[in-house]
Amino acid sequence: MRTLKILSLLLTLIALPSLAEVTADPARIQARIDKLATFGGTPEGGTSRPGFSEADKAAREWLLGELAGLGLSIRMDAAGNIIATRRGSNPKLPAIAFGSHIDSVPNGGNYDGQAGVVAAMEIMSMLNDAGITTRHPLELLVFVAEEDGLFGSAAMIGKLSEEDLAFVTNSGRSVAEGIDFLGGVSEAVAMAERSPAELAAFIELHIEQGPYLDNAGIDIGVVQGIVGIDEWAITVQGTANHAGTTPMNARQDALLAASKLVVAVNETVNVNGGRLVGTVGELKVHPNVSNIVPGRVELVLEMRDLDHAPVAEAIAEIRERAAAIADAGEVVITIEPTLTHAAAPTDPEIQAAIQAAADELGYSSLAMPSGAGHDAQNMAARWPTGMIFVPSRSGVSHSPREFTSARELTKGAAVLYAAIEFLDR
Amino acid sequence: MRTLKILSLLLTLIALPSLAEVTADPARIQARIDKLATFGGTPEGGTSRPGFSEADKAAREWLLGELAGLGLSIRMDAAGNIIATRRGSNPKLPAIAFGSHIDSVPNGGNYDGQAGVVAAMEIMSMLNDAGITTRHPLELLVFVAEEDGLFGSAAMIGKLSEEDLAFVTNSGRSVAEGIDFLGGVSEAVAMAERSPAELAAFIELHIEQGPYLDNAGIDIGVVQGIVGIDEWAITVQGTANHAGTTPMNARQDALLAASKLVVAVNETVNVNGGRLVGTVGELKVHPNVSNIVPGRVELVLEMRDLDHAPVAEAIAEIRERAAAIADAGEVVITIEPTLTHAAAPTDPEIQAAIQAAADELGYSSLAMPSGAGHDAQNMAARWPTGMIFVPSRSGVSHSPREFTSARELTKGAAVLYAAIEFLDR
Repeated sequence: MRTLKILSLLLTLIALPSLAEVTADPARIQARIDKLATFGGTPEGGTSRPGFSEADKAAREWLLGELAGLGLSIRMDAAGNIIATRRGSNPKLPAIAFGSHIDSVPNGGNYDGQAGVVAAMEIMSMLNDAGITTRHPLELLVFVAEEDGLFGSAAMIGKLSEEDLAFVTNSGRSVAEGIDFLGGVSEAVAMAERSPAELAAFIELHIEQGPYLDNAGIDIGVVQGIVGIDEWAITVQGTANHAGTTPMNARQDALLAASKLVVAVNETVNVNGGRLVGTVGELKVHPNVSNIVPGRVELVLEMRDLDHAPVAEAIAEIRERAAAIADAGEVVITIEPTLTHAAAPTDPEIQAAIQAAADELGYSSLAMPSGAGHDAQNMAARWPTGMIFVPSRSGVSHSPREFTSARELTKGAAVLYAAIEFLDR
Repeated sequence: MRTLKILSLLLTLIALPSLAEVTADPARIQARIDKLATFGGTPEGGTSRPGFSEADKAAREWLLGELAGLGLSIRMDAAGNIIATRRGSNPKLPAIAFGSHIDSVPNGGNYDGQAGVVAAMEIMSMLNDAGITTRHPLELLVFVAEEDGLFGSAAMIGKLSEEDLAFVTNSGRSVAEGIDFLGGVSEAVAMAERSPAELAAFIELHIEQGPYLDNAGIDIGVVQGIVGIDEWAITVQGTANHAGTTPMNARQDALLAASKLVVAVNETVNVNGGRLVGTVGELKVHPNVSNIVPGRVELVLEMRDLDHAPVAEAIAEIRERAAAIADAGEVVITIEPTLTHAAAPTDPEIQAAIQAAADELGYSSLAMPSGAGHDAQNMAARWPTGMIFVPSRSGVSHSPREFTSARELTKGAAVLYAAIEFLDR
């Protein structure tokens, strides 16, 4: 049934007037990327523009002017998200939404988030150039404070908690303070929640954050979903002891056991193969003094995959290996789950539309997961959602070295445009 | 030649009047241990009496009264070390010195240091009880701030540096401030240095700090020397990367490589066997965030042995294994030596005297290294030096759980007494 529907939609797409009639403009895209880079620009050529910072506010003010210049009607929701609407010919239809964010990590780059907002602006410019009115209203969305924890999109699905509001972001402001600083109304943030009926779809274009597309020379990533994240707090409890007087065979060295466990995690994840990734990124030694045998080590393990089965298999094996390591080292290892973010699969029809658009345009494409979190994962909880990845040089992100060429961004915008057209029919 | 000399001295010892004529008194020993424990005593039953603290000063004031009560003539050197002298029948002879320290680590126990000072006091009491005047003058030494870095004994051999004086100790006071606080003269600390001719020998009784004697039920440790310490700063440089988007086969994970190295260190040290110990006690991960593949890890390796050869062999092997780990993990590992303390062997004749005293008294004994540092290692740089270890329950030290029974301390004091008598002849 679904396959038939997709096929019929693809036929519709192929029957569209040539996409060449409306073209994305690399120079316009580059100019907007360059302009955004001036707000919080760093000497290294990157951007330091945490959500809710002065630089963020200044960039948003410029952006509001640009969006007004595109003839869009603009509003800010209670959470500070920008919603810029282009009228459709049938005002009863739900809106097709697309966009991303413009906040960056501290000392970040010029493309993570910005690429999606600039591509969304390009769609509006292209439609204006061509004098096209879509059937659905179109919404350009700019979410607040993505890098600090997807706060803007969380508000839009009614999931911004009191705890979130108190969270102190990289700007130094709490989320509540930041929302008010930007002109939102933190006390009424619940009003930012939108009903399922308001949107027909959401599509986010984003730079890839691993080196998949760039290494393979592929134009477009058709995102299958945002991987789930499972996290465990692991404690290795040994006995702190004098490093000079404690014989090697009388030690319960917590760091030795923890080290064996880090190696075991890597072996387990690698053997299970597939797209599963597993990382011990955080490890603290106690008392962490050169002349004391470590008595306790705390580490954090995280694993990510689109499917949960490989994660479940891997953690079971890791638990087994941890038990053996604990026995051998006379230490106690506890492994406690601390966090589970379910995977957020994207909508199969939107995936198919993006795929078909890339094919039609003659761009190479790759179906791939997103290993990082995005506002799209919140949106996917309520609306059919898709993501388009464009290459990022060497997969670098969260760094001044982020780079995607205007040519690559232009291809991404063209695919986004075609996918929107498809959804509009 | 040396063997002959030792043999002739042993014969002299055996010809002494029975040691039973003068006996160490367990009740007196215990009473002094208990009294010392009241200065800086903690709810856990231990002692928190860092050198230069108020508790340290109060304990020293009590101690000075006790030493005066033993008929000793007392002085404090410029560094704050207490030197309590018992006149000898031949004032031209250099003094035989013995003692230890009474400062503790924060939240320490009642025996590390205290045992040696109380045993030294017991020697003076025993001699008073028996009405004996030795040929040599005897000196009871109480060194300042042992736990912070052997500062008192360093001053006595002229090795207390300007840098040492500026060092901020666990008391919160710098060494210079602490010396002045106790009534020393930090500006004239060079005057605390003593010439080789002033002392004939130094003997320190101390609790063992590993579980060797206690586990084996042995009364006396005849210390062969204080092990050398070699330390290396190791850096593992990989590439920090996103834990979600970086494929397993594209990582240069610094923590994974560091973990393999910690395991390799342990395997190397264990295989080389002997008394060599090797420890990675300090390890720092950068950026140490759960969702970032670690980009850099800094660790500190230390190894200790009485002989240098096993250390040299082990570090050579560790360097080889590090190179292989670096290759496999596409990281760079650098290993830089940062610290070398040469081993401080004790004097063979004093070792023989301690051994003979234990044998004569019918106490079991074990020749063993000291894995921890002691004032004796500074003293050994200038004077013939010996150390006597007494058992410590489970080898615990630097903890309120330190425990050595009055019976064990009494045996130690008896051996110290006999060794002094031996040296006096």
